[in-house]
Amino acid sequence: MRILIIGGGAAGGTAAQFARKTDRKADITMIDAEPYGQYSRCGLPYALRGDTTPEKLVEFGPEWFEKNGIEALYGLRVRNVDFSNKVVETEGKGQIEYDRLIIATGARPWKPPIEGMENEGVFFLRTLDDLNAVREWVGGRKKVIVVGAGLIGLESAESFVRLGMDVTVVEFLSYPLPTMIDEDMGREVKKILDRNGIKGYYSHEVIEMRGNPVRSTLIRNRENDSEIELEADIVVVSTGNSPNTEIFEGIEKGRKGHIRVNSRSETSYKDVFAAGDCTEYPDFVTGKHVPMGMGTMAVRQGMAAGTNAAGGSLEVRPFIGTRTTELFGVEIAGAGPTAHILKENNIDFVAGRFRGKDLPDYMDGRDISVRVLASREGRILGAQIMGRDASWRISMFAEAIMRGDTVQNLSMLETPYAPPIAPTVDPTSIACTMVSMRLRRRK
Amino acid sequence: MRILIIGGGAAGGTAAQFARKTDRKADITMIDAEPYGQYSRCGLPYALRGDTTPEKLVEFGPEWFEKNGIEALYGLRVRNVDFSNKVVETEGKGQIEYDRLIIATGARPWKPPIEGMENEGVFFLRTLDDLNAVREWVGGRKKVIVVGAGLIGLESAESFVRLGMDVTVVEFLSYPLPTMIDEDMGREVKKILDRNGIKGYYSHEVIEMRGNPVRSTLIRNRENDSEIELEADIVVVSTGNSPNTEIFEGIEKGRKGHIRVNSRSETSYKDVFAAGDCTEYPDFVTGKHVPMGMGTMAVRQGMAAGTNAAGGSLEVRPFIGTRTTELFGVEIAGAGPTAHILKENNIDFVAGRFRGKDLPDYMDGRDISVRVLASREGRILGAQIMGRDASWRISMFAEAIMRGDTVQNLSMLETPYAPPIAPTVDPTSIACTMVSMRLRRRK
Repeated sequence: MRILIIGGGAAGGTAAQFARKTDRKADITMIDAEPYGQYSRCGLPYALRGDTTPEKLVEFGPEWFEKNGIEALYGLRVRNVDFSNKVVETEGKGQIEYDRLIIATGARPWKPPIEGMENEGVFFLRTLDDLNAVREWVGGRKKVIVVGAGLIGLESAESFVRLGMDVTVVEFLSYPLPTMIDEDMGREVKKILDRNGIKGYYSHEVIEMRGNPVRSTLIRNRENDSEIELEADIVVVSTGNSPNTEIFEGIEKGRKGHIRVNSRSETSYKDVFAAGDCTEYPDFVTGKHVPMGMGTMAVRQGMAAGTNAAGGSLEVRPFIGTRTTELFGVEIAGAGPTAHILKENNIDFVAGRFRGKDLPDYMDGRDISVRVLASREGRILGAQIMGRDASWRISMFAEAIMRGDTVQNLSMLETPYAPPIAPTVDPTSIACTMVSMRLRRRK
Repeated sequence: MRILIIGGGAAGGTAAQFARKTDRKADITMIDAEPYGQYSRCGLPYALRGDTTPEKLVEFGPEWFEKNGIEALYGLRVRNVDFSNKVVETEGKGQIEYDRLIIATGARPWKPPIEGMENEGVFFLRTLDDLNAVREWVGGRKKVIVVGAGLIGLESAESFVRLGMDVTVVEFLSYPLPTMIDEDMGREVKKILDRNGIKGYYSHEVIEMRGNPVRSTLIRNRENDSEIELEADIVVVSTGNSPNTEIFEGIEKGRKGHIRVNSRSETSYKDVFAAGDCTEYPDFVTGKHVPMGMGTMAVRQGMAAGTNAAGGSLEVRPFIGTRTTELFGVEIAGAGPTAHILKENNIDFVAGRFRGKDLPDYMDGRDISVRVLASREGRILGAQIMGRDASWRISMFAEAIMRGDTVQNLSMLETPYAPPIAPTVDPTSIACTMVSMRLRRRK
């Protein structure tokens, strides 16, 4: 059995590991365009700020794969795949035959089609090479613009603040983290960014990078078309990704080019699996295929692809999009679709939001916000939380969504209670009760 | 409609609130033997160490009940109840008639039947009066013995350490927190206590309090019968509770005197409800009635009792015993029965425990232990976690237990992942995978 894996990131590397675990004798080869081994892309903003180092981000180096009998070919690119004859054509190392193929080529930053994108001082933050280039350029410079207020954008923005720089964020949509949370929660995130000295331009689009090396960025207000020129000696662009799937012809892909996979990480071709950021997979709540783009799913799909390619059996669960980040000490987490996505899919829902304290009144609690979205019958569709332990509070909602539980039930679940941990009736329970009362009134 | 509530603690006070919410016009009377209003017993150890104050522990004072049109009679005791004629006989204020009665009399500390228990310097920590007496006695004294290594015992022990005292804990069973966690987890709790200077005598029983005021405590090793005399100028006894239910004759009670209630908090008498520490209620996993003894359930049962007594409809969910504490900065949490309880109920199970880090390798993670118990089919019966965010990690298990989910499913759930929050594959997922593999091998 010859298993060939294209891509050595979280999905590909995990696939190689699980293929090896499943079949001790299989002939496993992994091709990676980068030279470093399997490293954490999500860790890049944290290495930027010095919470960890670029070296530590490498979770499994080339020697790990070698030791486990996996032939890892680094710095090698694939030109194309002949799916009928089961042959991969590389750029420079000839052809490689396979019995089972795993595609884990990931994604690359989407590049806004504007002038000046190639100028010096304009960066992405997707690879270790990007990280090193940014770190080198930063030295002594002061003014940074981050384009895109998504997860990686804002985590990077915080890193630049910690490096003592003046940070401005420009976001196309009207609030930060727009794919992660709804607008009312977004307003609270804005306040956190404001409080920590990050200037924000929302509903603004970038028009041009000026100067080479970059000296300023021209942005346009999408509401009134006014233009502003912002000074910058470094610009980091973080406006989403495009899947690396152009070379795979004939395989079933979605609207934006992501390879469609099922719960076994199988593609439309027999014996061809795919995993990670290059794929799309059905969302549990909407039923619609959505592009993957989270380490969480990359690893789980990699586990399934590797196991199944090697003759074992492992299924990924339906996608619910559990997601989290921490900005200036505040956790922001979610699971299930946002209101925007539910509307786009014509799914009727009721939402409620509770703002309270994370501890009993007699302890020194902090603010926490809980937003819950439920169907007309009370089935929990999504939740978003900001505050202490938001991430693991969300894990309870993730399990509830997956099991089809209702706001009525969850409002009465025994949540963990102790004075330094949480109140007897937690804000999560109260938010569920609010939605459940709203549903009763609607009937 | 005349609703009478006996007891003004978490269960009784909550019942009064929810009765008022449900019926704005009902005639509601609450009788409380103590004078303070509704206060948090769980907060007592935290007021002892100064994280909060005795005054702040009063969550709803007498004036709150008055303002909400609830007649609250403080410092009043009940002599007996004539359930057939619906009359309560008080000690000193004559008879009070009711249409609906809610019993929320709570519990009192169980007093070991040994010599010297009445001596000066021997305390319980169950009421505000107890707290004030302990605080007054402590002044200048140095050596404290805590009898009973349960939740309140250990939280108090930590408080005494923080007050700069020499602390010794004596526990009848072989490890700390024996009703909360299994022995392998208990060994790790021992290490935390050791590290923080608490001397522990496990499998030891207290024989005698010597001196009046107390000067020492005689304890016996239950394994080899040897006796040791430990010096002490204060002893706090925390060896469990007895329900205050003796005066309620004819009502259905359990083996230890707790009043049996159903999910509507109804007792065996029509129009009589009960809630909180004086009740017992079926455990979800074993099906057996178990004494309640947690604020979590007291509040939820109070909500149901108050709502249903006033003509509304609210059900408590089956009991799963979500529980948590924090000792010297480490969270310890559980849900579902311990191994001991499962064995006692002849429920076949497989357990697995995983020790790992709470963050990705490249971040500065801390130790976390996760223990999972599952049925032969993989259904999750219980979980215990020690480490960062243990409490809210447990909430995911609480929901999984309630929804009959399996280790196979939970091992693949998308858990929250971000570098400063948790690894891509969380220790909770790995523990589930371990149990699931063990089950496969057993087949």
